[in-house]
Amino acid sequence: MEISHRFVEARRVRHHIAETGDGFPIVCLHGWPEFWACWEPLMERLHSKHKLIAIDFRGFGESENPNPEPSDKANARCLADDVIALLDEIGLSRVGFVGHDVSALVMQEIARLRPELCEGLFFFNCVTPGIGSRWNVPEHLGEIWYQAFHQKPFAAEMVGQSEASCRTYIKYFLDHWSYKTGVFDQVIERWTENFMRPDNLQGGFNWYISQNAARLAAMAGEVPELPKIDTPTRVLWGRHDPIIKSDWSDCLDDTFSNVELTFAEEAGHFVHYEMPDLAAGEISRFFAN
Amino acid sequence: MEISHRFVEARRVRHHIAETGDGFPIVCLHGWPEFWACWEPLMERLHSKHKLIAIDFRGFGESENPNPEPSDKANARCLADDVIALLDEIGLSRVGFVGHDVSALVMQEIARLRPELCEGLFFFNCVTPGIGSRWNVPEHLGEIWYQAFHQKPFAAEMVGQSEASCRTYIKYFLDHWSYKTGVFDQVIERWTENFMRPDNLQGGFNWYISQNAARLAAMAGEVPELPKIDTPTRVLWGRHDPIIKSDWSDCLDDTFSNVELTFAEEAGHFVHYEMPDLAAGEISRFFAN
Repeated sequence: MEISHRFVEARRVRHHIAETGDGFPIVCLHGWPEFWACWEPLMERLHSKHKLIAIDFRGFGESENPNPEPSDKANARCLADDVIALLDEIGLSRVGFVGHDVSALVMQEIARLRPELCEGLFFFNCVTPGIGSRWNVPEHLGEIWYQAFHQKPFAAEMVGQSEASCRTYIKYFLDHWSYKTGVFDQVIERWTENFMRPDNLQGGFNWYISQNAARLAAMAGEVPELPKIDTPTRVLWGRHDPIIKSDWSDCLDDTFSNVELTFAEEAGHFVHYEMPDLAAGEISRFFAN
Repeated sequence: MEISHRFVEARRVRHHIAETGDGFPIVCLHGWPEFWACWEPLMERLHSKHKLIAIDFRGFGESENPNPEPSDKANARCLADDVIALLDEIGLSRVGFVGHDVSALVMQEIARLRPELCEGLFFFNCVTPGIGSRWNVPEHLGEIWYQAFHQKPFAAEMVGQSEASCRTYIKYFLDHWSYKTGVFDQVIERWTENFMRPDNLQGGFNWYISQNAARLAAMAGEVPELPKIDTPTRVLWGRHDPIIKSDWSDCLDDTFSNVELTFAEEAGHFVHYEMPDLAAGEISRFFAN
């Protein structure tokens, strides 16, 4: 498998994309703490059937960060607009989307803004507004603390104080959120190097600043009533995700009118990395229909 | 004013105490991120009327930390037992107590375990179980995150990665929790040096590990019904404390049968440091009765 890399200007921001394979195009959208490389296991397994385009969001991976200081600009709407502009730029008018975490909310925006662009939505462990006050129950506070910490003006400085502190921090989340042990052990230096790139720690943290108001509104049950998303939707939820809990899948029907759900029984947050064979098979089956 | 320092063994832990003055003894108990030196402004103002004994809890200041690894041993009951043993050791059988933050809960334990030891309780910004689910409402999550972060096994390593990261972290809380600006500017190097002492960052963080179960139970409203504390109690609450909010003073009567409350209108979390004249005057008046 050969992965080619290029840079595409979208909304005046230089975006990095990694591409491989041939066939109906699937756009892969990462979460935090991730970047395009989190899709390598799926790229390996799907490139013979599909063209795969892994996009680095602004402030992540090798994409530009136009807001290197703490900023509330990179919310779900902003990242969705980036992806839409980028796909227009590279001439794709209909694609499948695969994503999770940050991208769960970005993909919902894309599906509402440009439904004709979306052949289907494939999520792992899908965040929706219906999770509501289950985010902040006492027993979940030990999980969500980082969403507040990342908003602090000193967070990037502290995490990035040294390569060692950055590695410790990123590795904690990769390990803690995985159900299988050691799945990121081989790549932790790449992840560390990636997040130590100038402005990348703040780039990721800006997601949390940007999303804060919507997040608190969801917890308070104060979300605007939106029409359901009719795009065919598939969710493969890692049973043991400690941060986006599989029980929360009970509210998917509030957001999607046409959703199928199954569980990855031996995975946590990173289904695509923990159970790539299962994930690739389900993605392939979903987009074949 | 001369401050004398000595070490006293209490429950097999070497405790540091700082003493000054003469008169009816007042024991000063610090919070986090503090140690004995936070009481210097009150020592200056009260030493002519009172003997002041500022104790460093285990794992803080110059006291020993018998649990240098992450540990759940140093809860409110443990610290209360330490203080009681220490006062027995130095031959004090009746004292006044002044404290806040961590010590609010420690002093409540002491008053329940040994009421005859307590001439009176003087609190700033007093945490009680009745605060309950107000801790974890959405709009307070941006404040309480550190209570979870401090429980993580990598927290002390990350904060203590360098003197710079430690200073940044401690200074954030001193500044953010103060209403007046710059009150700790003159002492930030002493505070940094203190928390960079071996085992002191983890010492402070062990409070949060140790207190976690009780904290979550309080949020869930699952607290044992305890008889009220009858010791005369005085609370001087900093009006603008962002973490222990002055509105929460409405539940003091659930814990104390004999409590008087007023507000320090120009202070936040650190009333003793932000408004030491007011604090000293109120303490003096309270213990004169």
